Amino acid sequence: MRRKQEQVRQRIVEAAYESFWRSGFARTNVDGIAALAGLTKRTVYSYFRSKDDLLAAVLHHYVQLAATRLRHIQDRMPTDRDGLIDSFFGQLAGWVRATPRWSGSGLTRLVVELADLPGHPARAIAQGAKAATEVWLTERLRKARVARPAASARDVMLLTEGAMVLMLIHGDIAYIDAAADAAKRLVSQEVLVGDVSSGSKAD
Amino acid sequence: MRRKQEQVRQRIVEAAYESFWRSGFARTNVDGIAALAGLTKRTVYSYFRSKDDLLAAVLHHYVQLAATRLRHIQDRMPTDRDGLIDSFFGQLAGWVRATPRWSGSGLTRLVVELADLPGHPARAIAQGAKAATEVWLTERLRKARVARPAASARDVMLLTEGAMVLMLIHGDIAYIDAAADAAKRLVSQEVLVGDVSSGSKAD
Repeated sequence: MRRKQEQVRQRIVEAAYESFWRSGFARTNVDGIAALAGLTKRTVYSYFRSKDDLLAAVLHHYVQLAATRLRHIQDRMPTDRDGLIDSFFGQLAGWVRATPRWSGSGLTRLVVELADLPGHPARAIAQGAKAATEVWLTERLRKARVARPAASARDVMLLTEGAMVLMLIHGDIAYIDAAADAAKRLVSQEVLVGDVSSGSKAD
Repeated sequence: MRRKQEQVRQRIVEAAYESFWRSGFARTNVDGIAALAGLTKRTVYSYFRSKDDLLAAVLHHYVQLAATRLRHIQDRMPTDRDGLIDSFFGQLAGWVRATPRWSGSGLTRLVVELADLPGHPARAIAQGAKAATEVWLTERLRKARVARPAASARDVMLLTEGAMVLMLIHGDIAYIDAAADAAKRLVSQEVLVGDVSSGSKAD
């Protein structure tokens, strides 16, 4: 019985996630979530008291998805400098291509939608997830022997967020390729002094 | 009389602009716009038939503001490579610092909010304004004798959009400084062959 309840709860959270990601928080209503989950509105309200309670559960789901996506990216990622950047942006482009009507980073969209509410609890969760991605990139770049891994991770974050926004504005995947190219040029300037394994070696 | 009507219309458009920029399109209602403009809802509806009609007028206002802002930036901008990039990001940082509860680029926010509606007429207008900014940057960089001005303008756009989003997420202006620094490093790689006026000259 508890297992059945957990499954219904999960179905509601997934429908809410899909609806928030597609249409944003403000334009989503509980009727739409219930319809998407194939449940009555009454059932949805027996699990979540309000749209805000649903948002809290969806955020938890978002953060888990983001962490899973990073692990997945990391599993396929070469450890050399250019290889890891190509892989990172290549997997981003793959996600965009595989998703009909791709709508950008859900966490970024949530922050943008709540731009006038800096104290909203959802903002802190989204910020934490973005900070975690920057730390994760720093670690990858440190292992690839980049001299200033934190500064390079920030450059990659700037280019990634810019690429997602401009991809959404123009519908043109060329922005992701341009971001990957710029990231490689920036990070290649950060070669460790005395490192003979990168930069000058012909390959 | 016509002049008086024009003034009231302008007051409504400015209130709607402020409200859309602060709270997004979905969370803005005509009551709030009327209150902000100090007018009755009835008066607002005598000028604009719907929130969508108001959005169309606001977009026109946005695009004019964006063009005015670019002209203003250009007037204060040095024409040398690093100087123009410092000036561009410096003026962006100045705008952020001078605006209480700065909420990001209004046009970007609008596209993000309408992410699931690629055919919405507002999307095409926002896209046109962003494309115009990229063309404007290309011209500035061409005049600064950058070898591949269009590619460099795209790099600057990626870093600018990324900086605005990450500034909004983290509330940390350091992202704008990091973007300016990355832009200078990228553009400095694009020195014209045989150009003695930049790069190697001590100054």
